[in-house]
Amino acid sequence: MLIREIGEFNLIERMSKALSSSGRNVIVGIGDDTAVLPFNGDKLQLVTTDMLIQDVHFRTTTATPEQIGWKSLAANISDIAAMGGEPTYAFISIGLPKTTTVEFVDKFYSGMNEIAKLYSVDIAGGDTVSSPQVIINIALLGEVNKDNLILRSGAEVGDAVMVTGDLGGSMAGLEILEHKLTFHDTEKHLKPIPRVNEGVLLARSGWVTSMIDVSDGLASEINHICKMSKTGASIQMKSIPLSQNVRQVSDIIGKNPYDFALFGGEDYELVFTCKPDKVQELKDMMDNEGNAEVTELGCIEDADKSVKIKDISGKIMQLSSKGYDHFV
Amino acid sequence: MLIREIGEFNLIERMSKALSSSGRNVIVGIGDDTAVLPFNGDKLQLVTTDMLIQDVHFRTTTATPEQIGWKSLAANISDIAAMGGEPTYAFISIGLPKTTTVEFVDKFYSGMNEIAKLYSVDIAGGDTVSSPQVIINIALLGEVNKDNLILRSGAEVGDAVMVTGDLGGSMAGLEILEHKLTFHDTEKHLKPIPRVNEGVLLARSGWVTSMIDVSDGLASEINHICKMSKTGASIQMKSIPLSQNVRQVSDIIGKNPYDFALFGGEDYELVFTCKPDKVQELKDMMDNEGNAEVTELGCIEDADKSVKIKDISGKIMQLSSKGYDHFV
Repeated sequence: MLIREIGEFNLIERMSKALSSSGRNVIVGIGDDTAVLPFNGDKLQLVTTDMLIQDVHFRTTTATPEQIGWKSLAANISDIAAMGGEPTYAFISIGLPKTTTVEFVDKFYSGMNEIAKLYSVDIAGGDTVSSPQVIINIALLGEVNKDNLILRSGAEVGDAVMVTGDLGGSMAGLEILEHKLTFHDTEKHLKPIPRVNEGVLLARSGWVTSMIDVSDGLASEINHICKMSKTGASIQMKSIPLSQNVRQVSDIIGKNPYDFALFGGEDYELVFTCKPDKVQELKDMMDNEGNAEVTELGCIEDADKSVKIKDISGKIMQLSSKGYDHFV
Repeated sequence: MLIREIGEFNLIERMSKALSSSGRNVIVGIGDDTAVLPFNGDKLQLVTTDMLIQDVHFRTTTATPEQIGWKSLAANISDIAAMGGEPTYAFISIGLPKTTTVEFVDKFYSGMNEIAKLYSVDIAGGDTVSSPQVIINIALLGEVNKDNLILRSGAEVGDAVMVTGDLGGSMAGLEILEHKLTFHDTEKHLKPIPRVNEGVLLARSGWVTSMIDVSDGLASEINHICKMSKTGASIQMKSIPLSQNVRQVSDIIGKNPYDFALFGGEDYELVFTCKPDKVQELKDMMDNEGNAEVTELGCIEDADKSVKIKDISGKIMQLSSKGYDHFV
């Protein structure tokens, strides 16, 4: 049997089950945005790792080396943010063809350095190897106070489902590049901004019960929260925050802008759940601090109701990670 | 300019210099077997990462999936051992072609699990992506008591240069595979044994001043110690411990067996320096504990003497990472 026949999630589940444990304390292993390990006093250590392959995860024809460096680290910083934590040390493995220019490497590290500085990340090690295409692996450490750790699994029935910033911008950027629409904004696709400050504030509030970052798309992330929390959820399509850019690009290419938000991914916003009586206080708090706005999308329901979405016309559909099921 | 024109070490040096620091404490960054970071009380955290690419670092035609899994983790465990530390948590990123069989993946993790169990390593996370060839990245954490940390940079003039076990076995295994010599031992090449217990004992003795593991070959490792310690060294070729297997294989294919030890690499033994008046005590200690034997190869000298080797005929040559310079 080939791995494409069983799919990525089944493969990961299969591997996780097979892995032995030495009995050492792993607070959270595979199945959240990062692993959570014992650390120092009240602090926990967070660890996340991502592999990015040329022509699978990025193209050197549409992204500059600086942007590739920035985005690789940004995706990992976002995983730390989704736990309520702050990034600390990064370890960068890079595979490069022998015909790579020194200029490419310099620019790649310059982009990575730029975001590392911005988020106080120290690049403390790595590996450099020869490979047929550009391959990047980042292992990023972080830390969080144990009282502020937010997992995917903490959502409770009645909690509000919320999100930082706006969604779909990364997909819009990709469409701009693919359709060569030169007059629109590609920053959300090429130089995404992880929400570390927002994640820390949300976690410290004590009102946030679960959190995840938007790497695969809003639909996938809400399904992850519900699966891990053993709940369902119900959201309103019209509440999903979209930028002007997303509306314009989707209009030009004739696609539904909400699909960019639900299935596009790589927005690196935070999706989280909040105790229902604290939604307004949370909005006010985030507003006062000058951070990304937060928007309420719906609420957590019983598990047997799965994940539902009310579309613009008022029709209720079941929402899976990859699409709509109209038979609800 | 292409990266092949400036070489791997120049590239790493170039990148290291370009990397910014946030001012957070990095006790040891790029330039030793692992990074060393602050941790918990008297303990320091060690972090190492390695990327392995199919047909660059391993071949699926000569190694089984179990062996590939074992060896990938073994190489990283060996880096932790070289600091006097013990491995704790591993994070495995794997890139797989869509046509990979589930059987390959199961066997890969089975080999990795086998060595993880043996060395009490918990596999606590990772990433799984699609790629044109098999790509493995391991990030391994470890810990060491701060009094037992051994760096490459601690060698002093007069110290003995020593090594655990015997050398050249990995290269012999590779030659066996390439020449299809079926009657000899390939274990040292395919399932190497990192020297964690030995590393801990050596570090705790208080007599060991520097240490490194044999990943690139004895010549390269001694040059690393000397460069970092700002010393030279002088070793005797006839003192280099070789197994019967290395002698037989080199004899069959008509090569110098000492070249296997000096330039073959991947033996994952520990090369270290020891205070000169403690060599016998150290040998006795290692003997008593039932670990790998340790052998004295020579001694540390002034920096201006660089690294020298006396060959079997008594001729003294300069020893670089990649070969001999006969003009000494």
